[in-house]
Amino acid sequence: MAAELRNDRFLRALRRQPTDTTPIWVMRQAGRYLPEYRATRARAGSFMGLATNPEYACEVTLQPLERFELDAAILFSDILTIPDAMGLGLSFAQGEGPRFARPLRDAAAIEALTVPDMDGELRYVMDAVRLIRRELDGRVPLIGFSGSPWTLACYMVEGQGSRDFARVKALAWDQPALAHRLLDTIARAVAAYLVAQAHAGAQALMIFDTWGGLLGPGPFREFSLRYMAQVVEVLKTDAASRDLPVILFSKGAGGQLEALADTGCAGLGVDWTLDIGEARRRVGDRVALQGNLDPAVLLASPEVVAREARAVLDAFGNHPGHVFNLGHGITPEVNPENVKVLVDTVHEHGRVIRAL
Amino acid sequence: MAAELRNDRFLRALRRQPTDTTPIWVMRQAGRYLPEYRATRARAGSFMGLATNPEYACEVTLQPLERFELDAAILFSDILTIPDAMGLGLSFAQGEGPRFARPLRDAAAIEALTVPDMDGELRYVMDAVRLIRRELDGRVPLIGFSGSPWTLACYMVEGQGSRDFARVKALAWDQPALAHRLLDTIARAVAAYLVAQAHAGAQALMIFDTWGGLLGPGPFREFSLRYMAQVVEVLKTDAASRDLPVILFSKGAGGQLEALADTGCAGLGVDWTLDIGEARRRVGDRVALQGNLDPAVLLASPEVVAREARAVLDAFGNHPGHVFNLGHGITPEVNPENVKVLVDTVHEHGRVIRAL
Repeated sequence: MAAELRNDRFLRALRRQPTDTTPIWVMRQAGRYLPEYRATRARAGSFMGLATNPEYACEVTLQPLERFELDAAILFSDILTIPDAMGLGLSFAQGEGPRFARPLRDAAAIEALTVPDMDGELRYVMDAVRLIRRELDGRVPLIGFSGSPWTLACYMVEGQGSRDFARVKALAWDQPALAHRLLDTIARAVAAYLVAQAHAGAQALMIFDTWGGLLGPGPFREFSLRYMAQVVEVLKTDAASRDLPVILFSKGAGGQLEALADTGCAGLGVDWTLDIGEARRRVGDRVALQGNLDPAVLLASPEVVAREARAVLDAFGNHPGHVFNLGHGITPEVNPENVKVLVDTVHEHGRVIRAL
Repeated sequence: MAAELRNDRFLRALRRQPTDTTPIWVMRQAGRYLPEYRATRARAGSFMGLATNPEYACEVTLQPLERFELDAAILFSDILTIPDAMGLGLSFAQGEGPRFARPLRDAAAIEALTVPDMDGELRYVMDAVRLIRRELDGRVPLIGFSGSPWTLACYMVEGQGSRDFARVKALAWDQPALAHRLLDTIARAVAAYLVAQAHAGAQALMIFDTWGGLLGPGPFREFSLRYMAQVVEVLKTDAASRDLPVILFSKGAGGQLEALADTGCAGLGVDWTLDIGEARRRVGDRVALQGNLDPAVLLASPEVVAREARAVLDAFGNHPGHVFNLGHGITPEVNPENVKVLVDTVHEHGRVIRAL
């Protein structure tokens, strides 16, 4: 599949093969910092109106590629599409983040959950993948994604974002069997969802474990890592997904890199609180790394953006297996000009590093 | 000073001396989870009315000691008293956290800052320390505290809490000289503040670096660690403070433990994302460790609270230098009965561990 791509740097880096320079994409690159995104979002009426309409999703997915020499596109969607399809009723209140109309509040609700039909409630996601893949026309690879089972469980039990997600933790500690039943159901749904995205044309897959870092090391392995590993395992059993590189990103779980590298994934997202050179030494040649500029750097001057981007590249050094990215999603206040500086600096300095 | 104490476990543990069992106190132990705290808070009218009145501050400081066999008291105050005394105008909107009326928005505002008079604007804090110390009457030691220079700068520049404190980071990256000037002024104020608390009777000192963990490793050393080290240095030059153990707590900076241990502090706070046994092996016999139960455990059943508390004690093992605490402040929803279970379990199981 990579053969038909005109730019396969991203996939080569994930496979730890040599590249001419370091590939870069930006988490949430199709987002509010772009005026053209805000315009499409306004036409769509609501965030879910945008995410559930394949034409709109395709339009905003491609927008950042028109401006910047990015090396990958990522499906525009939300990490909470699966619980929405499970019947929890997702909405986004203005400036307040996601909210479920019917959060999981008892054992009966958890036991009633089933894996949604990927050709039914979630067909709009697969339609978007197919459309984007066609419109990309081999320019760069398309990344499909899902939230991690633990992260989905956090929102499904809590009903919305939370400072400490104490309710889902109390479930995990007080009723571990029920928590494991929930996580297993979600993991089966996540695996089916990613397999379906692979069939629809995704060329790499990423799992966002936004809230894994809220767990201590023991609970992280038991409730977050284990179910990501289960998903990775299932992906290796389907012809469409088995050769696609999978990236796991557990934000704030820098202490768990080695364990994450042992899941069989191809790459690990790294947030900005680690030195990426040290992270590379810790995981050795087991996986590629993706990261890890502090997103707040993009609010500084262009000179600082270029300097800090070079510092990340220098820290990683002249080794295979680096996909440049931010350590977390880009924020709405960023000036798009700084993203251009970032992308161009990474490509330029990536070449310099390879010549060392 | 420890000689006159009836319970000096906390100070002995910080000095890595043998103790009969593991001492425990709880961050934010005088807080909203206690109905008697809420009653005093209601009488005081506002949070600042409570914090700035030495009688009220003394009353709430002592409340948790009436209920639980805690091994230390901590001054009831706020980490933002210094910037308030510098003229920034602190207030707490209902359920919204701290807010400054006059945040630092330009170089002139930063250059105009001076170290406040510890016997003037901040006298209420020293009066509270003196009063609490008298009322404690040697029962347990009294901990004084301050926010870290970096954490104070975060709030002073941003004007309030923030998800990513992008404004203060942009200052640090775009105008490092100005940022260092600000941090140096704050560090001098923090040192003077802690020295004054030592003179007033504090028997240990703690620096809360709530937002140090938002920085990557390089910026952490440059903007957070460096100024905590400066404070520790100054504390060693005053007769009242030089023998007091100092605890540094940089939440979310688990990767920086070794560097923190090199500041000359006596102890390090550890959040729950690290295994405390591994943390102990990393810092060796340089410092004591304080932590690190996930505060969310206190929302589970009493059996889980006891089990998880024992797990933390077991992870640390039979070594000197452990002060039990949560990995972050206790939350308002906690049932006080669970705190009793926690404190009693730690004392019981701490004795068991010492007999191994």
